[in-house]
Amino acid sequence: MDKKSILKRDLWMAKKRIAPYISHTPFVYSHRLSRLTGSEVYLKFENMQEIGAFKIRGAANKILSLTPEEQARGVSTFSTGNHGMAVACMAQKLGMNAIVCMSRHVPQVKVEMMKRWNPTILQEWDSQDAAGEYCYQMEKERGIIVIPPFDDKEIICGQATMAIEMLEDQPLLDTVLVPLSGGGLISGVALGMKLLSDQVKVVGISMERSAVMIESLKAGHPVELPEEPTLADSLLGGIGLDNQYTFDIVRDYVDETAQVSETEIADGMAYIMEEHKMIVEGASAVGVAYAMRPGMIEPGSRVGIVVTGRGVSMDTVEKILEERYRA
Amino acid sequence: MDKKSILKRDLWMAKKRIAPYISHTPFVYSHRLSRLTGSEVYLKFENMQEIGAFKIRGAANKILSLTPEEQARGVSTFSTGNHGMAVACMAQKLGMNAIVCMSRHVPQVKVEMMKRWNPTILQEWDSQDAAGEYCYQMEKERGIIVIPPFDDKEIICGQATMAIEMLEDQPLLDTVLVPLSGGGLISGVALGMKLLSDQVKVVGISMERSAVMIESLKAGHPVELPEEPTLADSLLGGIGLDNQYTFDIVRDYVDETAQVSETEIADGMAYIMEEHKMIVEGASAVGVAYAMRPGMIEPGSRVGIVVTGRGVSMDTVEKILEERYRA
Repeated sequence: MDKKSILKRDLWMAKKRIAPYISHTPFVYSHRLSRLTGSEVYLKFENMQEIGAFKIRGAANKILSLTPEEQARGVSTFSTGNHGMAVACMAQKLGMNAIVCMSRHVPQVKVEMMKRWNPTILQEWDSQDAAGEYCYQMEKERGIIVIPPFDDKEIICGQATMAIEMLEDQPLLDTVLVPLSGGGLISGVALGMKLLSDQVKVVGISMERSAVMIESLKAGHPVELPEEPTLADSLLGGIGLDNQYTFDIVRDYVDETAQVSETEIADGMAYIMEEHKMIVEGASAVGVAYAMRPGMIEPGSRVGIVVTGRGVSMDTVEKILEERYRA
Repeated sequence: MDKKSILKRDLWMAKKRIAPYISHTPFVYSHRLSRLTGSEVYLKFENMQEIGAFKIRGAANKILSLTPEEQARGVSTFSTGNHGMAVACMAQKLGMNAIVCMSRHVPQVKVEMMKRWNPTILQEWDSQDAAGEYCYQMEKERGIIVIPPFDDKEIICGQATMAIEMLEDQPLLDTVLVPLSGGGLISGVALGMKLLSDQVKVVGISMERSAVMIESLKAGHPVELPEEPTLADSLLGGIGLDNQYTFDIVRDYVDETAQVSETEIADGMAYIMEEHKMIVEGASAVGVAYAMRPGMIEPGSRVGIVVTGRGVSMDTVEKILEERYRA
C-alpha cells in the first residue's frame, strides 16, 4: 500500500459520509493554559462524542464505505474499548448487525457498557487474541467484515474529519498536539492539516512507558514492546509488524514526537477537570500535559490540542483529586 | 406588568437574536438513568456554554434588546456569579463596556474569573447591596442600564430559547425537570414548553433549604427567607418582594414543584460525573436527584432534565468523590 493513495478528496468524502452520525465537537479556548503559555490554546473535546471518544469517526467512515452487500452481512470487532463501542454504536444507528467477540475475562463493567448499543456479544474465548482470530475466520468464511481499529485507509480518513472541524473553527492554527498510539488518529489529523492547510505543525505525544510508535520511528520499522501500566492506557497496544499505513504516514507527516510522564499526565487530567470541568481519560491529557511543560509552546502561536475520550474509572479520578484537594 | 405580555413571537425573536453568541448545547441520552426509571431521559448540558452556564442566554437577549444608544453607553451588573460573567462575556463579544460592581470582600478567585471577559471592575464597597445601589445610581444618572439577573421579560425570553432547542432535538418530550431559584430559567422554559408544544409537564426543583419560590407559592405572594448553606448554592437568593414576572409565571405555568435533600444533590452530582464524565455544580444536579428518587418518573415517558452550570470548587468535588470511591 502507498500512503499517497489517500487523497484530499478522500478526506472530504469522509466528512460528508459521517456527518449525520457524529458530533462536530466543541473546540474551546482554554484560558489558563493560554495565559500560562502566552499563546492561544484550544481544546478539541472529542470526549463529547456520543460514545465518549473520537473512535466513532473512523468506525463510521469504514462501515459506511462498505458495499450494500457487505453492510447486509454485518460487521465484527474484537475491541472491548472505545473502538468496539464505536463499531457497535454505528451498526445500531444503521440497523446492521455487529458481532463483538471477546474473552471470557473481560470485566463485566465493559460488557455492560457494550450492551448499550445492543450488538451480538460472543464471549467464548480465553483470550482476546482467540476472539480476534474468530472474527477473521468469520470474515473469510462468511464475509462478515472485521472493522480494524487504526491501520486502515477509511479509518484514517474518518479520524481526519477532526482536522477539518478544527480548521473550520480556528482557521489560523499553527500547531496541533495529538495523542500518539497506533497512529490512526494522528495519521488522519496530520493528513488533514498538511493537505488542507498550510503546513500546520503536528506533534505526536505518547506516555513515557511503552511508546511503540516512537520506538518504531527510532528503529526505522515497526517494533514490539511489552506493555507497562500507565494512566494513558488507551494509548497502549502495538502498531502491527506488518503495518500498512500509519507507520509511513507518521514518519512522513508528523513533525515531532514527545513523551510525557505519569505525573504530567495526572496534572493534565487535573487541569482539564479544574478548568473545563470535564473528566477525561489519561490518554486525553497528554497534549495538555506537554503544553504545560515550560518552553514547549511558541508564544503568540495558535495551538489546538486533541482531547480524545472519557474512558476513565472514578477510582482513578478520585486518586488524582485526593492528592491535590483533600483538606 | 402582565405575564401575557410575553408572546410566542418574543421567544422566536430571542432565539434569532442570540443565536450567533450562544451554543446550541447537547441534549444527551442518559443510559443508566433511563434504565433506572424505565423512561427516556435526556440531559440538557448548559454547562457547555462558553461561560459554563445557561445565564448567557438571558443576558445576551437583554443586551441585544437595548437601543443602539443604550448599548453605546454600556451596561452594568453587580452579580459576581454566572449572571455577572454572562453580562461581561456578552459585552466583550459586542465590543461594549460592562461595569461589574462588587464588594471588597468578593474572593479573589471570583474576581480573576470575571477578568477573563475584561469588564471594568469596581470593587469599592463593603457589601454587594451597596455595589448594587451604585449600579442603579449609574443607570439613573448616566443611563448605564443594569442587566437584571432574572425578573425581566427579555431575560426570561432568553432562557426560553433553551426550551426551543430541547423541542428541536427531542420533539416528543412529556416532562421537563428544571432547577428552581428566582424563576427566570423556569419561567422561560415553562413558557416555551406551554406556548410552543403540547402541554409538556414542567417540574421545578429546589433544595430543601431556603427554597424561596416554593415558600412564596405556598404563601400566595413573594416572601423572604434566610439563606442556609447548600450544595445548590446557585439556587439561593430572593425572588424580590416586588417581583414583576417570575412569581406569576411560575404560579400559572409550572405544574409541580419538589425539593431534594443535600444527600440527593450529592448523589445527582456523582451520577453526572460517573455517567457523563462532567463536573457540574449542585444546582445543576437537582433534576437528576429528583429523577433518581423512586417513583418520580412515569415509566415510558420522555424526560428532559436541565443541567444549568459548572460553577463548583474542586474541593467540593473531591469531598463527594472521596465518600464514594476512596479505597
